[in-house]
Amino acid sequence: MSAPFSFRLLATDGGARRGEIVTPHGVVQAPAFMPVGTQATVKGLTPETLRATGAEIVLGNTYHLMLRPGAERIATLGGLHEFMQWPLPILTDSGGFQVMSLSELRQLDERGVTFRSHLDGAMVALSPERAIEIQALLGADISMQLDECLRLPASHDEIRRAMELSLRWAERSKRAFEGQAREGYALFGIVQGGDDMALREESARALTDMAFQGYAIGGLAVGEPQAVMLKIVAETVPMLPEARPRYLMGVGTPHDMLEAVARGVDMFDCVLPTRNGRHGMAFTRFGAINLANARHAGDARPLDAESAHPAARTYSRAYLHHLTKANEILGAVLLSTINLAYYQALMADMRAAIAAGRFQEFHAVTLAQWEQGDIPPA
Amino acid sequence: MSAPFSFRLLATDGGARRGEIVTPHGVVQAPAFMPVGTQATVKGLTPETLRATGAEIVLGNTYHLMLRPGAERIATLGGLHEFMQWPLPILTDSGGFQVMSLSELRQLDERGVTFRSHLDGAMVALSPERAIEIQALLGADISMQLDECLRLPASHDEIRRAMELSLRWAERSKRAFEGQAREGYALFGIVQGGDDMALREESARALTDMAFQGYAIGGLAVGEPQAVMLKIVAETVPMLPEARPRYLMGVGTPHDMLEAVARGVDMFDCVLPTRNGRHGMAFTRFGAINLANARHAGDARPLDAESAHPAARTYSRAYLHHLTKANEILGAVLLSTINLAYYQALMADMRAAIAAGRFQEFHAVTLAQWEQGDIPPA
Repeated sequence: MSAPFSFRLLATDGGARRGEIVTPHGVVQAPAFMPVGTQATVKGLTPETLRATGAEIVLGNTYHLMLRPGAERIATLGGLHEFMQWPLPILTDSGGFQVMSLSELRQLDERGVTFRSHLDGAMVALSPERAIEIQALLGADISMQLDECLRLPASHDEIRRAMELSLRWAERSKRAFEGQAREGYALFGIVQGGDDMALREESARALTDMAFQGYAIGGLAVGEPQAVMLKIVAETVPMLPEARPRYLMGVGTPHDMLEAVARGVDMFDCVLPTRNGRHGMAFTRFGAINLANARHAGDARPLDAESAHPAARTYSRAYLHHLTKANEILGAVLLSTINLAYYQALMADMRAAIAAGRFQEFHAVTLAQWEQGDIPPA
Repeated sequence: MSAPFSFRLLATDGGARRGEIVTPHGVVQAPAFMPVGTQATVKGLTPETLRATGAEIVLGNTYHLMLRPGAERIATLGGLHEFMQWPLPILTDSGGFQVMSLSELRQLDERGVTFRSHLDGAMVALSPERAIEIQALLGADISMQLDECLRLPASHDEIRRAMELSLRWAERSKRAFEGQAREGYALFGIVQGGDDMALREESARALTDMAFQGYAIGGLAVGEPQAVMLKIVAETVPMLPEARPRYLMGVGTPHDMLEAVARGVDMFDCVLPTRNGRHGMAFTRFGAINLANARHAGDARPLDAESAHPAARTYSRAYLHHLTKANEILGAVLLSTINLAYYQALMADMRAAIAAGRFQEFHAVTLAQWEQGDIPPA
């Protein structure tokens, strides 16, 4: 074991924070982006390729893994790190979000949620205690409490009900986690409350009283406008203890992350770099580039000659266009790799800027570069 | 340029040959297996991953590349080596085989073949001269003549007609190739004649008189029983000049290659290791293993703990089973890699056995190991 969980705040610059998240499987530099390894694999990438993008931690999905291959099976095989050959830190979600979004038939009550598996139609139960048990079986360095995540817009009463239920589940999650005596491992609470800041405050205060090792802002990135999300982030962050990491779940685009870091967020996860990579879209210093576009067909230039990652420097846009049009696996692999490397480079640049006290300048320059867009061919 | 094309026969052992194929982009140790890079990519593998399997040469498909992205486009972008970032030798087929098997509407006459593109329905013409031109635009180290490849069974008259047409096309291909003055690059002729050994002999003799740099045995691996294929190979090989490499097109399984090497074949290509890898099948020292089978679900053992390739040693069968069942890209990537590494290891082992004069023993031991099958779990 590397070291018990802890968070070190190394520097601040305005609202932005430069930190270090210490976990049993290693140290994560923050602000940190966590690639999503839904089914025990970050789609298309070997662990070595993933590591070479700069990733220091991955996210695993409790919902998918409990259904296939099963948490007990992964535990028997040595845990998720061993199963997917990823020796660095892993954070697992609680399964709640995906139960809500993926399963058609579900029944939610005080005890938890029962749902029909999208794989074989079997009825499956998930409670706060079972979610914690599953994450322990997986061997997650950081576990998340089970919560109820609503889609916005929702009525005030509905948001209050879900927030209060999530708080009671937070307590039960914490009790279950402590009962496991997994010394050095961490459990995060999740702030809910929709777009009602009084409810967010109530949620944040109650969770802080329970003393989690970290705090997530949940219920965002579910379709609301970016301005709404950033306003809620900006107002929620001050409600959270400074000495703990802050994780904005399911976010986001490079722009989302730049703005959320400015508002004090330390951790992110998102499927965009891999999902969009599989559909021909590249994230670069010049903004998003759609490789399926015919204008790339004869373009011998790489995506970004100055990228630190060889895949972005080496292959021509014409080749990436060809692979995308031909629906070749390698297109998905290369663009997912290039996108994840860009996400990691952006985080590294933000960390360096915060440490040097020039985050505001970096923020402005980066926005300007994105707005300027792609370099036209010579 | 590494060196002009040449073939060195280093050792023989019974019918088996250990050789070296020198090409402008490097030396290929023979017997050699060429992974198939149909659309300018060996499906799912980066060039680095492909190289790490032991591959020294890849095959490119004229038919696919002429339709997308187009031979002229690839030439403008620096050729196929540069386009796919594969700096080692490339052999291209002539497109004939795939015109026959993939295009529904085609018309064949003395001049060549006209067919409807499976991509956009456009009518496209391929002649011996155009096939050579395309392969030059791609920059192939080894080009193949255009031939007509029949499916067996076929009537004697039909086989004769196709063989004679292929001979006339061989002459035209050679004239076109020589007109390009691509010094140091190679053109291979293709022996046709179906299962009629008199026709095969006529084809081989005429081609030998034309003095190609190498000779392929075509029209096999098109559905005939293995015994038929091996009989034709055994009887055709002695008709070919000893000082030139012999290439058995589209073959095959590990067993096919073991037997064909015993009969004097130097080169192979086949989509099996990648195609079957994409469908959950692994080729190993213990024979073929279907990872989709439920018996692997809890098996913590790797596919082959003694493999020289890390992917075969590292990931558990349970993980490969999971990736296969979950239809994850990484499953296709890892099994394609593992299979290509096994194919290359088999070729390397055959080369060592021939050089040491113990090919017969190697042949027997390998067959016995395949027949014994997979190691059962402890």
